[in-house]
Amino acid sequence: MRLMFIGDVVGSPGRQMVKEYLPKLKTKYKPTLTIINGENAAGGRGITEKIYKSFLDSGAQAVTMGNHTWDNKEIFEFIEDAPHLVRPANYPEGTPGKGYTYVRINEIEFAIINLMGRTFLPPNDCPFRKADELIEEVSKRTPFIFVDFHAEATSEKQAMGWYLDGRVTAVAGTHTHIQTADERILPNQTAYITDAGMTGPYDGVLGMDREAVLKKFLTNLPVRFEVTNGREQLNGILVDVHPKTGRANKIQRIQISEDKPFFE
Amino acid sequence: MRLMFIGDVVGSPGRQMVKEYLPKLKTKYKPTLTIINGENAAGGRGITEKIYKSFLDSGAQAVTMGNHTWDNKEIFEFIEDAPHLVRPANYPEGTPGKGYTYVRINEIEFAIINLMGRTFLPPNDCPFRKADELIEEVSKRTPFIFVDFHAEATSEKQAMGWYLDGRVTAVAGTHTHIQTADERILPNQTAYITDAGMTGPYDGVLGMDREAVLKKFLTNLPVRFEVTNGREQLNGILVDVHPKTGRANKIQRIQISEDKPFFE
Amino acid sequence: MRLMFIGDVVGSPGRQMVKEYLPKLKTKYKPTLTIINGENAAGGRGITEKIYKSFLDSGAQAVTMGNHTWDNKEIFEFIEDAPHLVRPANYPEGTPGKGYTYVRINEIEFAIINLMGRTFLPPNDCPFRKADELIEEVSKRTPFIFVDFHAEATSEKQAMGWYLDGRVTAVAGTHTHIQTADERILPNQTAYITDAGMTGPYDGVLGMDREAVLKKFLTNLPVRFEVTNGREQLNGILVDVHPKTGRANKIQRIQISEDKPFFE
Amino acid sequence: MRLMFIGDVVGSPGRQMVKEYLPKLKTKYKPTLTIINGENAAGGRGITEKIYKSFLDSGAQAVTMGNHTWDNKEIFEFIEDAPHLVRPANYPEGTPGKGYTYVRINEIEFAIINLMGRTFLPPNDCPFRKADELIEEVSKRTPFIFVDFHAEATSEKQAMGWYLDGRVTAVAGTHTHIQTADERILPNQTAYITDAGMTGPYDGVLGMDREAVLKKFLTNLPVRFEVTNGREQLNGILVDVHPKTGRANKIQRIQISEDKPFFE
Ligand SMILES: [Fe+2]
Ligand SMILES: [Fe+2]
Ligand SMILES: [Fe+2]
Ligand SMILES: [Fe+2]
Ligand SMILES: [Fe+2]
Ligand SMILES: [Fe+2]
Ligand SMILES: [Fe+2]
Ligand SMILES: [Fe+2]
Repeated sequence: MRLMFIGDVVGSPGRQMVKEYLPKLKTKYKPTLTIINGENAAGGRGITEKIYKSFLDSGAQAVTMGNHTWDNKEIFEFIEDAPHLVRPANYPEGTPGKGYTYVRINEIEFAIINLMGRTFLPPNDCPFRKADELIEEVSKRTPFIFVDFHAEATSEKQAMGWYLDGRVTAVAGTHTHIQTADERILPNQTAYITDAGMTGPYDGVLGMDREAVLKKFLTNLPVRFEVTNGREQLNGILVDVHPKTGRANKIQRIQISEDKPFFE
Repeated sequence: MRLMFIGDVVGSPGRQMVKEYLPKLKTKYKPTLTIINGENAAGGRGITEKIYKSFLDSGAQAVTMGNHTWDNKEIFEFIEDAPHLVRPANYPEGTPGKGYTYVRINEIEFAIINLMGRTFLPPNDCPFRKADELIEEVSKRTPFIFVDFHAEATSEKQAMGWYLDGRVTAVAGTHTHIQTADERILPNQTAYITDAGMTGPYDGVLGMDREAVLKKFLTNLPVRFEVTNGREQLNGILVDVHPKTGRANKIQRIQISEDKPFFE
Repeated sequence: MRLMFIGDVVGSPGRQMVKEYLPKLKTKYKPTLTIINGENAAGGRGITEKIYKSFLDSGAQAVTMGNHTWDNKEIFEFIEDAPHLVRPANYPEGTPGKGYTYVRINEIEFAIINLMGRTFLPPNDCPFRKADELIEEVSKRTPFIFVDFHAEATSEKQAMGWYLDGRVTAVAGTHTHIQTADERILPNQTAYITDAGMTGPYDGVLGMDREAVLKKFLTNLPVRFEVTNGREQLNGILVDVHPKTGRANKIQRIQISEDKPFFE
Repeated sequence: MRLMFIGDVVGSPGRQMVKEYLPKLKTKYKPTLTIINGENAAGGRGITEKIYKSFLDSGAQAVTMGNHTWDNKEIFEFIEDAPHLVRPANYPEGTPGKGYTYVRINEIEFAIINLMGRTFLPPNDCPFRKADELIEEVSKRTPFIFVDFHAEATSEKQAMGWYLDGRVTAVAGTHTHIQTADERILPNQTAYITDAGMTGPYDGVLGMDREAVLKKFLTNLPVRFEVTNGREQLNGILVDVHPKTGRANKIQRIQISEDKPFFE
């Protein structure tokens, strides 16, 4: 059994890549479950109901989020009615939406958990303790547990990988928009990668117009960041899962760009 | 012509990996120039003269540093006498040591520049403007320019890559201790990678004892981080350089660990 | 009825001021209850059992802490046996010590609560929710509730003042080491001040040697901060409390220095 | 000779206070020079040309800014034509506007400098070195030098006070919006206060609607901060200056609110 996870989809270039390549990736790799991080899907900031549904239509079964969850105000109107949209679980009690969901495919139920780091990010509830709580809960129903840990600091992400090793199927980092090359199966059969990377413009800075970002760094003047145009990329991971134990056998990275073309 | 760069060497496990594999890597890849980031070489914190010299003895020609430059007080005693030890150039004027150096190998002179980011790091001088200044300076002598950009935020690092594209041979990020998978040749022939990764323990958190790091995240109590033991890894990059223009043709990642053994 | 609160006591100059002036202040102002913030009492970093006891001997009944709580390791040995030593209550569950205490004086019981902000400080549990929880708890026993809110950002502190207005006797900020001039009785009879100020050296930077602090700002090199010498100051507040309702009638600042000498 | 400085004017409530009280304060205290920090004057975010001119019409001779300088885009159109509008001098080279100005009143020329801290604020150029540079420059023309140091951290502000002691007339902090009670004449005759406080709503959080700010702290959801209504306050300082040396003899705080009414 196999999971596929596509990292932060940024704006229309990212959505275009999902639309074009998700069907091809599914044909090639035959994942049982496909998850997309959609926190930047609407113009780089948040997600709309239409985009959420288009991801499901393209073949994903769940969408995770991050610190940009609330950037597009439309989310407050549909999040309670979007059963497979998951925002970081360690937002404070009372936050709209939910931090985990279940997806049933044939006989198998998967739990998808979204958590957010606190280093260089807002002070939400402890992601480690929240992970304990949610894993205890979802483990009653299934050993197939995918965690999208949306965080900035590599230390916090790697610490979470070790913390959950043996308790979940996979811990995949998101947020930095740069795929890391440290994918591995941890000693207790949890798949881990610090960041799955992003899906969208190939020639921007994290998907944004690079002139604007450089202006910001050079001047500290206010700048409006916009999703940039041009060439595109897609980044994600595949995790092969033991069909009984729910632990991982293998993790491999997916990269599609002009420099690394897709072969069917 | 080829450059080799080894990412942040952490403690004695990292030094052990350098000692064991640097000669083998040199035999296999025949780099003209080898550079090591040594900011964590002495017990995870800074560097000593003995370690600096051992890196040169192992076959490196220059050593770069980062935010841990001053952690081992011994550096204040030998930095002025270490011609190929480079600390971030954008420390304020008057800082001991220097931010760039030249290495001559046969007929060719290389410039090695070290810069440090400011996002989530101390407010040093602007690394982009300092880059302009140094590149103008060193370009008078050589087109072979290697930049180690020691920074936390992927945005700042990617922005630097684009900013220097076409003006230097390579921009390699360090500091996050996790190798990224985004190595590429930018459109104007500068090699780029967000982070070269680290060299040291394979089963810690960024090289440090993972129980200590987890205790920190779980309790916010003071914790002493120590370099951990056990399995080891080495991470770095190779850059193939056009012998006339000094621009890059190819960048490839190096990873050595039990999961990715070295083949001679 | 009256409360007296002395802001962050820094090192031996601060302890000296407490020893000399606390008896005089008690004679002059006749507070029913005296509280001291002691997070910097031991050489600027944490507190020892001896110092804690000396504060009680000098006439205080409770000691509050802050982000420096754990700086002196001795605290782990005596905190569980120090009934009136209070560390920030919103440290994660399982943290040694306690976040509130009761002091009984004659017929009246006071609750003393310590909380810590999260803006520019470590990501502990939400201080606002923790305040709700503790106030609900202690209000069952007493309306006399003093809150030391140890925080950096004026916004977070002022927000806490408004949040607790009418529910506690007083909210006094600490941590910035600079007394603010915004003491007031909020509309629902809670006394508020953004920062009570500090007690210790008068001619340092927040009590520390100013040459060292300036060196840090000018160079970003590592610097060891030491409590400085010379002239001293004491800062604190007095709160007059309605003996039935536990709400505040009046708040006034205390300042003692060479520029503002104490008159008996 | 006397200087008056009014701290961060926030929105229309702040402007209303300036309009009402600045003439009365001038009548009462007869300052030779009046300066206003206007970084929040336009709806809490930046300043417009109309507001800048209204401040001059109300009797101020110079306006300083801070981290909100660029929030109202109109500033880019008039800053070069506003001779007495000063933005932080340590913005990078090439930033629109200027970091200091001169005001001539009768026979006396005053220099007004604006600097911004870097702790918990964007990484601009070093404010201490920029201070050295500007003071060397303006001292050629006048010993009457006023510095508005717009910064968050009390340590950085107090360090600046000591750093400039004896070299300028006064160092007044801004940005925290809470007046501090540490006004003093430093040993070498420089007047110092960590923060002059703000001018605007009396019952908000730093001038902003407190429900919105509390919602932010409690939920981490996006919130639009608006200047609040109701009662108002004005905060500032007066500095008495030696007419020959330009050094300060006396500093006193100004506070006007319903709790501290103004007496003519
Ligand atoms: Fe993202
Ligand atoms: Fe994100
Ligand atoms: Fe490092
Ligand atoms: Fe580093
Ligand atoms: Fe303190
Ligand atoms: Fe503190
Ligand atoms: Fe302001
Ligand atoms: Fe400000």
